[in-house]
Amino acid sequence: MTSAMIDLYCPKCGARYSADERRQLCTFEGAPLLVDYDLAKAAKTMTKASLAGREPSMWRYSELSPLRDPAARVSLGEMMTPIIDLPRLSQKYGIALSLKDEALLPTGSFKARGAAVGVSRAKELGVTELAMPTNGNAGGAWGAYAARAGIRAHVIIPQGAPAVNRLEAVMTGADVRLIDGLISDAGRVVAKEVAEHGWYDASTLKEPYRIEGKKTIGLELAEQFGWDVPDAIVYPTGGGVGLIGIDKALRELYAMGLIGPRMPKMIAVQASGCAPIVKAFDEGAKESVMWQNAHSVAFGVNVPKALGDFLVLESIARTGGAAVAVEDDELLERQREISAAEGVFVCPEGGAVLAGALALLRRGVIQPGDRVLLINTATGLKYPDIPYATPPFVERQGA
Amino acid sequence: MTSAMIDLYCPKCGARYSADERRQLCTFEGAPLLVDYDLAKAAKTMTKASLAGREPSMWRYSELSPLRDPAARVSLGEMMTPIIDLPRLSQKYGIALSLKDEALLPTGSFKARGAAVGVSRAKELGVTELAMPTNGNAGGAWGAYAARAGIRAHVIIPQGAPAVNRLEAVMTGADVRLIDGLISDAGRVVAKEVAEHGWYDASTLKEPYRIEGKKTIGLELAEQFGWDVPDAIVYPTGGGVGLIGIDKALRELYAMGLIGPRMPKMIAVQASGCAPIVKAFDEGAKESVMWQNAHSVAFGVNVPKALGDFLVLESIARTGGAAVAVEDDELLERQREISAAEGVFVCPEGGAVLAGALALLRRGVIQPGDRVLLINTATGLKYPDIPYATPPFVERQGA
Repeated sequence: MTSAMIDLYCPKCGARYSADERRQLCTFEGAPLLVDYDLAKAAKTMTKASLAGREPSMWRYSELSPLRDPAARVSLGEMMTPIIDLPRLSQKYGIALSLKDEALLPTGSFKARGAAVGVSRAKELGVTELAMPTNGNAGGAWGAYAARAGIRAHVIIPQGAPAVNRLEAVMTGADVRLIDGLISDAGRVVAKEVAEHGWYDASTLKEPYRIEGKKTIGLELAEQFGWDVPDAIVYPTGGGVGLIGIDKALRELYAMGLIGPRMPKMIAVQASGCAPIVKAFDEGAKESVMWQNAHSVAFGVNVPKALGDFLVLESIARTGGAAVAVEDDELLERQREISAAEGVFVCPEGGAVLAGALALLRRGVIQPGDRVLLINTATGLKYPDIPYATPPFVERQGA
Repeated sequence: MTSAMIDLYCPKCGARYSADERRQLCTFEGAPLLVDYDLAKAAKTMTKASLAGREPSMWRYSELSPLRDPAARVSLGEMMTPIIDLPRLSQKYGIALSLKDEALLPTGSFKARGAAVGVSRAKELGVTELAMPTNGNAGGAWGAYAARAGIRAHVIIPQGAPAVNRLEAVMTGADVRLIDGLISDAGRVVAKEVAEHGWYDASTLKEPYRIEGKKTIGLELAEQFGWDVPDAIVYPTGGGVGLIGIDKALRELYAMGLIGPRMPKMIAVQASGCAPIVKAFDEGAKESVMWQNAHSVAFGVNVPKALGDFLVLESIARTGGAAVAVEDDELLERQREISAAEGVFVCPEGGAVLAGALALLRRGVIQPGDRVLLINTATGLKYPDIPYATPPFVERQGA
């Protein structure tokens, strides 16, 4: 039950790095580093039978976790998230829809997975201060887990980012500063301060372990599907770390003999106001180009250029998936539809993935009867300002 | 693994009612009805050993659940909630503090437990429409579970109630109407419409099953404490259903031989702006008196008169507990303290229970070294409007 981690490698040039020292990007390519595991060794102890008796949390897959010491974990009580069937929408649309509800994690979003593993590893490597730019849920999650670990977190947030994420980071005691600018401006300040102070750079994909946390979505879903996979996994794609992580998880499980060779179609959904990966996919490009004037109500997908874009595009191509953009109006409409029809108050990104799945059903990428798993990345509570109809008034009754 | 439910009884007059028909309050006393179980029968199959192999959710205690058909459950994927240790605060205050984090339930609050069981039983009893007044989290939770069940929910919300709860109920498709008045005005409209239309009245404690859902907090915590109980359980008390439920759970477990006779001190925390149960406790009264001009930032405890007040007061007295009021300023300060020191972004009510515990430590009701379990009833995300310091700005760096 110990980690089978070997080392880190660059997916662009293959350079290898020790996993037992602090690392950020590949020295040569500036690309994200990935964790390599001894999967034959992992397969000896991580079996279907052994898993059945383990704790029901993302930490149960300790062989495929980068923590050297499982006891060093930094936890806020995260449990496995449920896969919820959507019977009414399945009947309506003729596909077998279900939803993995990441809202039930600490801090209310899937960012908890990356922060839990990222902060745990940072602590294990002796980090005492970390920094990151954030527009959204990551700042709250990393703030919370850093507080839990006793690590000082420095978070730079664009002034225009949703107030609720600022609130989370402030309340959990992070050093929060605002910037009159975009996430890219915040990123430049972080880069400068990281260099000046020797802090750990926890920006998306600039350290190797966040993806290992996100990977647990894939490990869980394969086990929850009875060591099988759905026909398609539909993921709201901003930085794309979750999609990369799910793909990595499924390939590791296949190499270990825990699932078969069939991969689900990996589907990236973006908003039409910020769709760099969709554009690259449509053009057959291997990387995306920075999107100008990015905007969407679904701010989780409002990422104009993702450091891991090439990994997302490779996964989509290899699995016969697709990338698709949806309008803000439609994703909000689908958010309401899921919430009212099935009782799961999803976030706008959760609406986006349904909208994307339906678009691909019309195009034939998704077929009638397919088992389609939607990833709901956060609770709808994170968006208190979405538009909705004001309810009518009722008259008072005499006392 | 089937329910050991026998029937319903009135805790005031002892009248008994069949559990297999729709029931609201005791016909004679107007008091809440409680569910009675055949605990000897339940003890035969609900053993420590059998539980070890069951699903990690509130549904694992099926013998002590009122669902006749376990498959009839209405679920949004709720899992057992964690008990999180608070090592820094424990060291600071000299008591062994931990926190049961109800934020990790669907809809982000402990109300999910009552709604899950209440709606499941309503569905089992053939209910197609229900109604309730709500100021807070209950409307969102019952809206969501009713949507899941295909039951029409009618929810009346005071105009001044927090917008986030209105949002949840609207999004999950409830018939939401606002009222220019207080929760008591909303309650009168519900009473009238329930009588007119034959709807099920899902108001707090006006149906017998919400408390059975809340009871699972007590079942879980006893199992999580290794079939033992802490020295004190500190609960933010509005309607008091959770406290009543925890107390009922522990007494049932004792009768079944699963825990010993020692009960934790049951401690009710209220806000000084709405403290009817504290007033009754201080005066040695058996029931509370309607609190005038109730107000608190912790709107979960802003209940001027609870239908189950006599049960709360009885539990406190029997267990050597206490009721204590805390100021809004202090509960907000403690909310920040827990969040920053331990990384758990609790709600203001979560701050209130720490404030209450510390007050009782000063009074000697809680002793140094005691194991004190705080109940955090919801995520801090449900309070996007709490006051907090605006972060400073940082200068942009050249591109």
